[in-house]
Amino acid sequence: MSKLWSPELWALTPYVPGEQPRDHVVKLNTNENPYPPAPGVEAALRNYPADHLRLYPDPTSLALRQALARVHAVEPAQVFVGNGSDEVLAFAFQAFFRHGKPVDVPSITYSFYPVYAKLYAIELRAHPLTASWEVNLSALAADSKRSGIIFANPNAPTGHAHSLEAISALLEQVTDNVVLVDEAYVDFGAESAVALVSRYPNLLVTGTFSKSRSLAGLRLGYAIGSPELIEGLQRVKDSFNSYPVDSLASAVGIAALEDDVHFAACRERVMTTRERTRQRLEALGFEVLPSKANFVLTRHPEMEGAQLFAGLRERGILVRHFNTPELSDFLRITIGTEDEMDSLMEALEVLCA
Amino acid sequence: MSKLWSPELWALTPYVPGEQPRDHVVKLNTNENPYPPAPGVEAALRNYPADHLRLYPDPTSLALRQALARVHAVEPAQVFVGNGSDEVLAFAFQAFFRHGKPVDVPSITYSFYPVYAKLYAIELRAHPLTASWEVNLSALAADSKRSGIIFANPNAPTGHAHSLEAISALLEQVTDNVVLVDEAYVDFGAESAVALVSRYPNLLVTGTFSKSRSLAGLRLGYAIGSPELIEGLQRVKDSFNSYPVDSLASAVGIAALEDDVHFAACRERVMTTRERTRQRLEALGFEVLPSKANFVLTRHPEMEGAQLFAGLRERGILVRHFNTPELSDFLRITIGTEDEMDSLMEALEVLCA
Repeated sequence: MSKLWSPELWALTPYVPGEQPRDHVVKLNTNENPYPPAPGVEAALRNYPADHLRLYPDPTSLALRQALARVHAVEPAQVFVGNGSDEVLAFAFQAFFRHGKPVDVPSITYSFYPVYAKLYAIELRAHPLTASWEVNLSALAADSKRSGIIFANPNAPTGHAHSLEAISALLEQVTDNVVLVDEAYVDFGAESAVALVSRYPNLLVTGTFSKSRSLAGLRLGYAIGSPELIEGLQRVKDSFNSYPVDSLASAVGIAALEDDVHFAACRERVMTTRERTRQRLEALGFEVLPSKANFVLTRHPEMEGAQLFAGLRERGILVRHFNTPELSDFLRITIGTEDEMDSLMEALEVLCA
Repeated sequence: MSKLWSPELWALTPYVPGEQPRDHVVKLNTNENPYPPAPGVEAALRNYPADHLRLYPDPTSLALRQALARVHAVEPAQVFVGNGSDEVLAFAFQAFFRHGKPVDVPSITYSFYPVYAKLYAIELRAHPLTASWEVNLSALAADSKRSGIIFANPNAPTGHAHSLEAISALLEQVTDNVVLVDEAYVDFGAESAVALVSRYPNLLVTGTFSKSRSLAGLRLGYAIGSPELIEGLQRVKDSFNSYPVDSLASAVGIAALEDDVHFAACRERVMTTRERTRQRLEALGFEVLPSKANFVLTRHPEMEGAQLFAGLRERGILVRHFNTPELSDFLRITIGTEDEMDSLMEALEVLCA
């Protein structure tokens, strides 16, 4: 035990991301997009003037914020950008959730939220999902003494998404604290709550380039909300790191945002493959939770999750298994290419035979 | 005043970086390198497989840490990397300086330190520089009750650097807390304390690709120290953002580290121009503090700093002026190309005539 560490470090339980294996496997474990980023991304890389890297980036990332504002039909003053939505979420926890009262979260959701909460000494109040594995919005909103509410929509790792009507109803009820809707997976069939930000000044919506824009390697995330919330995020960011978004990532991100056609085509392919995968899994006897994300959560009535995970791994197929009481029966399977899903199904057919 | 903000946000005083003007000026205000990054950087950009960006980066940034370990003759386990040394410094404040006692710092130094201190509720104990504008190491080490010590070497914005002997003497005296030596400017003529990390497990040295590697736009920084300190930084990082260094920045950074010849040549040119600039400024009647950095701090006995700053700005030349009682007489001038320094001198000749 190091006496040099700040005492709080011992209490931290760092987030453990899915593996990034270097050898060749079918990688269906971290919800990456199986399709390459927009062709403009390659062009942006080829044409970027290397000499420009000797200068600091624009600390306000105005060009990238303008591009996001255009795509989401909001003003640049309603947009914040950061180093992946993970960084944006961390800033939001510090900026909005430290009122000395608990933050309401679903009990099953993105497992980074409890990590942020420990980092910033924030208490979480976890609310079980409904019997049909949906985020229980009424339960989240039930108490009135809180620092805020956060949930993912679609939720992870379940894939269920609430409608805008349901989210509006929550926002009509909760007006005194920030309601953060994490939309990392929204582009695969759910409705975006960005449509509501001008109506609810306490609504913050986060998003990422990692999934639907095929840029997980680039670390670009954003938040959209009222200028008051964006200014709060900016204040934390400017007390931490003036330029978390580098010049190159910004240029590449803008190129990705400009290609609506590629974007729509990739989403469509992932959604089509997801439906086909669901049917094939069900044909093998799996239960598949309805998903609006680029993954499915699924379990087999007669097979343990850990056993299936290990069996797939032996066959060079990596999926995600969460070793918690509620989820240990399940596998979370990222939607890959049709070929990758064929390999998955072949392996599962053997394992479940 | 937003009731949605965590109350502590009101107490933050965000860091204000130097301007990044978009129009054409002689930019000598943010200590960027006037020479382009290594030719291998352009090649890395041209050859980077865009498709690879769809995958998450390696959360441990092993390849980049290995490259830094090679350059600095240490082990990868002694190296941490982050999104610029600003992020690395922020992590270090949280990881090592929260023991409920003050952190000793020079009263004049990198102005981001007080910003981190507020962000993490850390008290700073500021020690005046010596009469010759040097960091007073004995004063920093005088008290025994502290959470840590931090100083920049060379210091900013003065440019003075202490010898390794002086820093060793401090480390012989201070063994119970982290001593953080911020070496953002070390490559322009100072000695690196990295040579001491294996001897002192409480020594943490931070560095950046922004200055001597001409990559300010890319946001790459690092820390070198004992595995115990590196693990502390990792713990905070993994509770904040799994991948603050993106795949592209990592590849480009490795390319920059591989070119020793370009690196040496750029450093040499900057140091030569610095000496020439010092002589020319002195010939105009300026006092120039001896500098081991890529900038000089200078004042004219008969001209106010603010007046010179404004006069230069009118002539399209941007330098840095700090509006604090101790520094308001001075200008901090980044060492640019010979041509840029000629423009500066021509303008100063007119202003001081």
